[in-house]
Amino acid sequence: MTISIGILGATGYTGAELIRLLHRHPGARITYCSSRQYNGKKISDVLEFLKGSADMVLEEFDAAAIRDRCEAVFSCLPHGASMDFIARIAHPVKVIDLSADFRIRDLAVYRKWYQEHTCPDLLNDAVYGLCEVYRDDIRAARLVANPGCYPTSVLLPLVPLLREGIVEGRDIIVDSKSGVSGAGRGLSLKTHICEVGESFSAYKVGRSHRHVPEIEQELSLAAGHDVAIEFTAHLIPISRGMLSTIYVTSASDEDSLKDCLQRFYRGSPFVRVIDGLPGVKDVRGTNRCVMTVKKNPGSSRATIVSVIDNLTKGASGQAVQCMNLMFGLDEATGLDSVPVFP
Amino acid sequence: MTISIGILGATGYTGAELIRLLHRHPGARITYCSSRQYNGKKISDVLEFLKGSADMVLEEFDAAAIRDRCEAVFSCLPHGASMDFIARIAHPVKVIDLSADFRIRDLAVYRKWYQEHTCPDLLNDAVYGLCEVYRDDIRAARLVANPGCYPTSVLLPLVPLLREGIVEGRDIIVDSKSGVSGAGRGLSLKTHICEVGESFSAYKVGRSHRHVPEIEQELSLAAGHDVAIEFTAHLIPISRGMLSTIYVTSASDEDSLKDCLQRFYRGSPFVRVIDGLPGVKDVRGTNRCVMTVKKNPGSSRATIVSVIDNLTKGASGQAVQCMNLMFGLDEATGLDSVPVFP
Amino acid sequence: MTISIGILGATGYTGAELIRLLHRHPGARITYCSSRQYNGKKISDVLEFLKGSADMVLEEFDAAAIRDRCEAVFSCLPHGASMDFIARIAHPVKVIDLSADFRIRDLAVYRKWYQEHTCPDLLNDAVYGLCEVYRDDIRAARLVANPGCYPTSVLLPLVPLLREGIVEGRDIIVDSKSGVSGAGRGLSLKTHICEVGESFSAYKVGRSHRHVPEIEQELSLAAGHDVAIEFTAHLIPISRGMLSTIYVTSASDEDSLKDCLQRFYRGSPFVRVIDGLPGVKDVRGTNRCVMTVKKNPGSSRATIVSVIDNLTKGASGQAVQCMNLMFGLDEATGLDSVPVFP
Amino acid sequence: MTISIGILGATGYTGAELIRLLHRHPGARITYCSSRQYNGKKISDVLEFLKGSADMVLEEFDAAAIRDRCEAVFSCLPHGASMDFIARIAHPVKVIDLSADFRIRDLAVYRKWYQEHTCPDLLNDAVYGLCEVYRDDIRAARLVANPGCYPTSVLLPLVPLLREGIVEGRDIIVDSKSGVSGAGRGLSLKTHICEVGESFSAYKVGRSHRHVPEIEQELSLAAGHDVAIEFTAHLIPISRGMLSTIYVTSASDEDSLKDCLQRFYRGSPFVRVIDGLPGVKDVRGTNRCVMTVKKNPGSSRATIVSVIDNLTKGASGQAVQCMNLMFGLDEATGLDSVPVFP
Repeated sequence: MTISIGILGATGYTGAELIRLLHRHPGARITYCSSRQYNGKKISDVLEFLKGSADMVLEEFDAAAIRDRCEAVFSCLPHGASMDFIARIAHPVKVIDLSADFRIRDLAVYRKWYQEHTCPDLLNDAVYGLCEVYRDDIRAARLVANPGCYPTSVLLPLVPLLREGIVEGRDIIVDSKSGVSGAGRGLSLKTHICEVGESFSAYKVGRSHRHVPEIEQELSLAAGHDVAIEFTAHLIPISRGMLSTIYVTSASDEDSLKDCLQRFYRGSPFVRVIDGLPGVKDVRGTNRCVMTVKKNPGSSRATIVSVIDNLTKGASGQAVQCMNLMFGLDEATGLDSVPVFP
Repeated sequence: MTISIGILGATGYTGAELIRLLHRHPGARITYCSSRQYNGKKISDVLEFLKGSADMVLEEFDAAAIRDRCEAVFSCLPHGASMDFIARIAHPVKVIDLSADFRIRDLAVYRKWYQEHTCPDLLNDAVYGLCEVYRDDIRAARLVANPGCYPTSVLLPLVPLLREGIVEGRDIIVDSKSGVSGAGRGLSLKTHICEVGESFSAYKVGRSHRHVPEIEQELSLAAGHDVAIEFTAHLIPISRGMLSTIYVTSASDEDSLKDCLQRFYRGSPFVRVIDGLPGVKDVRGTNRCVMTVKKNPGSSRATIVSVIDNLTKGASGQAVQCMNLMFGLDEATGLDSVPVFP
Repeated sequence: MTISIGILGATGYTGAELIRLLHRHPGARITYCSSRQYNGKKISDVLEFLKGSADMVLEEFDAAAIRDRCEAVFSCLPHGASMDFIARIAHPVKVIDLSADFRIRDLAVYRKWYQEHTCPDLLNDAVYGLCEVYRDDIRAARLVANPGCYPTSVLLPLVPLLREGIVEGRDIIVDSKSGVSGAGRGLSLKTHICEVGESFSAYKVGRSHRHVPEIEQELSLAAGHDVAIEFTAHLIPISRGMLSTIYVTSASDEDSLKDCLQRFYRGSPFVRVIDGLPGVKDVRGTNRCVMTVKKNPGSSRATIVSVIDNLTKGASGQAVQCMNLMFGLDEATGLDSVPVFP
Repeated sequence: MTISIGILGATGYTGAELIRLLHRHPGARITYCSSRQYNGKKISDVLEFLKGSADMVLEEFDAAAIRDRCEAVFSCLPHGASMDFIARIAHPVKVIDLSADFRIRDLAVYRKWYQEHTCPDLLNDAVYGLCEVYRDDIRAARLVANPGCYPTSVLLPLVPLLREGIVEGRDIIVDSKSGVSGAGRGLSLKTHICEVGESFSAYKVGRSHRHVPEIEQELSLAAGHDVAIEFTAHLIPISRGMLSTIYVTSASDEDSLKDCLQRFYRGSPFVRVIDGLPGVKDVRGTNRCVMTVKKNPGSSRATIVSVIDNLTKGASGQAVQCMNLMFGLDEATGLDSVPVFP
C-alpha cells in the first residue's frame, strides 16, 4: 500500500520537515503540494536542497485535484486560513491539520485566543492528535488536530500523572525553551541571527502564549477538573529542539512518579522515561520525547524535564505518526528514534 | 591613584575577564599574576590574545611578593584551595575572593556542600560582595566574598522584594540558564562543542547545585526567616550570559513589584528594571543586571526575568565593582554598561 | 537479505553515525560492536540517546565472534591500530576501514605521514572507497579504504575535471572549512565550546594536514602526472558540515566545466552540480555532495565550491554506500538525500 | 578636550558599535544622532540595551544642527545616500564616512560598481582611512573614507609585502569568511538564524563582491602596477568576526615575509604578527588585526591568515581610530586590544 499525500502550504519549515519524512516513508508518496505564494514554481526554487530528490511543482489549492490525487492531506497553513481550506476537502480524504484551528474544543476559548471559528461542525469530528494519549481515536479519525510543540512537550509527561492523580492539578509552572524554527520562516528581527544568535531570552510570560489554552484544555481533561498553569516561553539560539522544565506538587516519591510514566508509555515506541537529564541534541531529527522526574525527599515539589524536536515530534513527525495510525500502519513507520548526533 | 593588583589563578576564564577589565581600568595596574600550572610561563602562552597588550610572567604564589607589590588581590583559585592561600596574604592587602570559600556564613552548611573550612576566623571578617545590597559593608571590608553567578542573577531581583515583604518567602522556583563558560576552562564532554553546541539541557535539578545554600542564605536574611527554593540549572549553547526565570507568590500587583525594585535600584548604575523582556545579548561584556516582573491580574504568581553576563556581573566585573568600592572609587569605574552588540 | 554487521570502535562520532544509518537500513543489522575503552558496557552508557533503540553490549575485539556473526565489518579505530585488527579478520568477511591505513598506496608516503605500515600485503587488496569514482572496483572488493572527509569534498569535483584535462594539474589551491566533529570525541581545548564556539580559525596551513598526500595521490591518478596542492583547513563553529573552496586554472569556460561534472555524475544519486552557491545546511545528515563552478570570462582561474556532511558522505555515509555496492544493493539504500532542515 | 560627535544613521550595527566605543571614549561625547526611519524616537526604542546608558533622541538630518553642535560626524548611511548628506555638512566639521562613497578614486570604477558619483569634488579631498598605511594623511584630512571590512583584513597584510616587492602582484587569491553582522540589520532569509545558523556557505565568488575594486585599487597603489585578485566571500554562523586566508606567490622565505610585516607594524598598536594561527575570537570587540604568514620551503606559494572584528577594526573601531588621528589624540584612545574572551 502506498498512501497518496497532499501538503497545503508546503514551503515553510513544517512543510520541509514533512517532505523530508515522507520522502523516505516506505508507505507514502507526495502527489500534490500547494502554495499560495509560490504557486507555479518548483518547490526546489524555494527550498533549494530538494533539487534532484523530492522536487515537484507547487500548485494552487484545488479541491478537485485533492479529491482525485490524495488519500490524505496535511495542512501547514496558518491558523485561521487552515480551517477554511480544510472545509473544502471532500470525504473520504483524511486530513491532518498542523495549525491550531481544530485543537481547541471550546469555541469561546478559540475566539478569545485566535478568532471566530468558521467551521464548528468540523470541529466536532476532529480528534486531538497526541498519539500516545488518543491512539485509538486517531485510528478512527478523518480529521486530526495535530498538537502544538509546547503542548506536546508538556502534555506527554503531565497527562499520565494527572490521570492517575499523583500530582496535583494546581500551581503547575511550566518553563519552556524552544529553538527558533518554531517562529517559522517569516522575516523579523526576532529571527535575525545577530539578534537571537549567541543570546537567550524569554519572549512570552505568564499566560500570554497561545499554547496556554491548548495545554490547559488537555490537563483539565486528564485531571477531571479545571487546571491553570503559569507558562514562560524562551528562545534557544538553535534551529531545532525544545525543552520544558515543569514544576508540580506531589505527595508521591520520585520512584512512584517515574513508575507511573513508565507504565503509561510501555508500548509507545517514541517516549522514553530516563534516569539522567536529557538534552535536545538527544532527540534532534527524531520523533522521540525523552523525559525524567526528579524529587527531593521531604519536598512537596517535583521537577520534570522533557525534550522533543519541535519540528518532528512537536509538529511534522507527530503528524506522520497520526497518519500511520489513521491508515493502519505501525505508528513508527518512517520515523526515527536515533538522532543525527552530534 | 593607581591600585596595584595581584591575581591568583589568572589563567582561567574569570582570570582572563579580570585582565580584560583591569587592563582598561584607569585606576588599576596588574603587578602580579600567579598560576600553579603555568608558573614561569608568560600568560600569553596560555591566553595567546594577550600577546602585545596585557602580557606578563606567571609566578608562584609568594606572600612576600604580594605584600611588596600589591594593594589588592583577586583570587580565582578553586573552592577549598582559595582560603588556604588567602590566609597567607598579609594585612593591609585587600582581598576579593571569587571562590565560594567565604560566601557561606554557617560552617556546617559550608562543610556539607563543600568541605571542612580551614580558616573560620577569616570568615568572620568577610563581607558578601553583592554590591547593590552590601555597598557600605564592602567599602569598609578587607576581605570580600564575591557572589556566585546564579546567586547574583537571583538575589538582585529577590532581595528587595523579600525585604519589603511584597513577595512571599516560600515556594520560590528558580529556573536558571547559563552559558558554558561557567563550567570553566577544564576539559570534559560537558564542554565539548559537539555535545553541548546546538543543544540545550538541564544539568542540576531540585536542590543539588552548590549555589542553592548561597542563594537561600541571602534570601533568608532578606526575608527575616528561613527561605528554601527549588532550583534548576540549564546549559545554553553560548559562551557567556545567564538568564534566570523566577516564579514567586505575591499579593501585590505588577506595578507595585516593579516600583519596589525601581526604588531600591535608584542610584545603582548597573541594575535596570525594564518593561520589556531582556535577553542575555543585551548585557554581554557589561556589568549590568537587567530585570523585569510580570504578573497577571487575578493570579497569585508573579514571574521575574533577570539577565547578567555570568563572567562580568556574575564574576569578575562584580569583583572589580567591589574593588572600586573598597578603594573609594566610583563603583562604575572601568566597567561597561553598553554591550558588545550584536 | 539482511547483512550482519560488526563495528570496531563503535563509540566515537563515526561509530554513532554508522549506528544511526544502519539502524534504519532495510538490508543490514548490527550484530557486533567492539570498544576497548567501554568493553562490557552497553553502548547506551556511552551514547545515552541509543537507549531503547539501537542499544547493545560492547565487546572486546574477537576474531572468532566476527567470523561467526558478521558478513561485514566497519572499522572506526584510529590510524595505526585499525590495520592490526583488520589483519585478524578472516575471509570472507568484508571490511570497510574508516581510518587512513589503507588509503595511501605508497608505503613510503604512508610511513612519512603516519608510521610504518604493518600489513602491506593487505594494502594491495584494498580499494579506495570513493564510490562515484571507483564504483566497479568497490563492488568487487573485500577491503575498502573509506576516503577521508576533506579528500571526499575535494576529489569529487576535481577528479572528473583532471581526467578530462580541462583544468590544469598545477597551482591548485584548496581552502577547506570543517565542523568540529571531524576532531572526534576526544577532549582538548580545540573542542571546548568556549574556545571554538562563536569563533572561526585556520588550524592547518600549507602542506601540513595528513589529508594532503591522500588528495594528491588521487589527483595525480586523475591527471596522469604528479599533482601538488596548497591546502588550508579551518574550523567552523558547528558540529557537522564541510565546505571546500577550490581555485584551479583552466582555459575552458564555466559552462564547459559544469558540463563535464554533470556528465560525470549523471547516474550518481548523491552528487549534484548546481548553479547557485551551496551551504553545508543543504546536506546535513545526507550522503550528498553538492558542488558548483564559477568562472569569470577573461580570467584563467575558476572557483569550485563543494559541500558535504563530514560525518555522512565524508565518513560513515560513504562507508554504508560502499557496503551497498559490495553486497549488490542499490548504492542509495538507507541513505538520505533530503537534509534535516533547518 | 572633548570632541562633539554626530552620527548619521545611528541605528544599524555600525551605529551601535560607534555608540559603544564613543560612550567610553575619554575624549568624545555624542551630541547628535540622526535616523530617517526612527526620527523623533529615542535610540533606546530601537536598541533597547542603550536604555539608561547612552540614550538620546534621534533627529532628522539638519545641517545647521550639525554645524552648531558637532566637531566631527560619522556617517553610517548606505552607499549612495551618504555622499549626498555629507556634501551638506559645512566646514570645518570633520567627516568620517563608513560607506563606500569616497573609497574609490576612479569615478568610472565607482559608477560601474555602485552608481553615478554625485560629488566628485569632495572625492578629491577624501583620504582612505586605513590608519596604519595612511596615518599622516588621515591626521590632516577633513574627510576620511573609512575602509570596508574585507579590504581591511586583506590590505593590512598585503600592502607592506607588495610595497617591498617580496610578494608578486599577480595571481593573488583571497578566501574570506565573515560573521553575519556584515549583512546589516535588514531582514532577509540570508540573516534568518534557521537558514544561516549551524551552516556555512559561500555567497560571492570570483570578482562579484563590491569590495574587489576597493581592494585592487589599494593593492595596485602598493605594488606600483595593476593588481587583480580572485575573491570569495563566505558566511560564518556568528555575529562578529572576519578571517581572510590569502594565497600569494613569493620567492622569499617565511621569515623574510614575517620580518617585513613586523617592521612595517612596529609602532602600530593594533596590528600583531604572530607565529601561531589566529582565530576571530582572539580579536572580538577589539580594534586589532592579527596576522601570520606560512610558507613551505621549496614552495612558491605563501599563505597569509588575518583576523579582525568586522564591526570594530573592520568598521566603527577603525573610524574612531581615524577620529583620534584627525584630532591629534593617541590613535589607541578608547579602543581595546584585549578581547571579550571567551
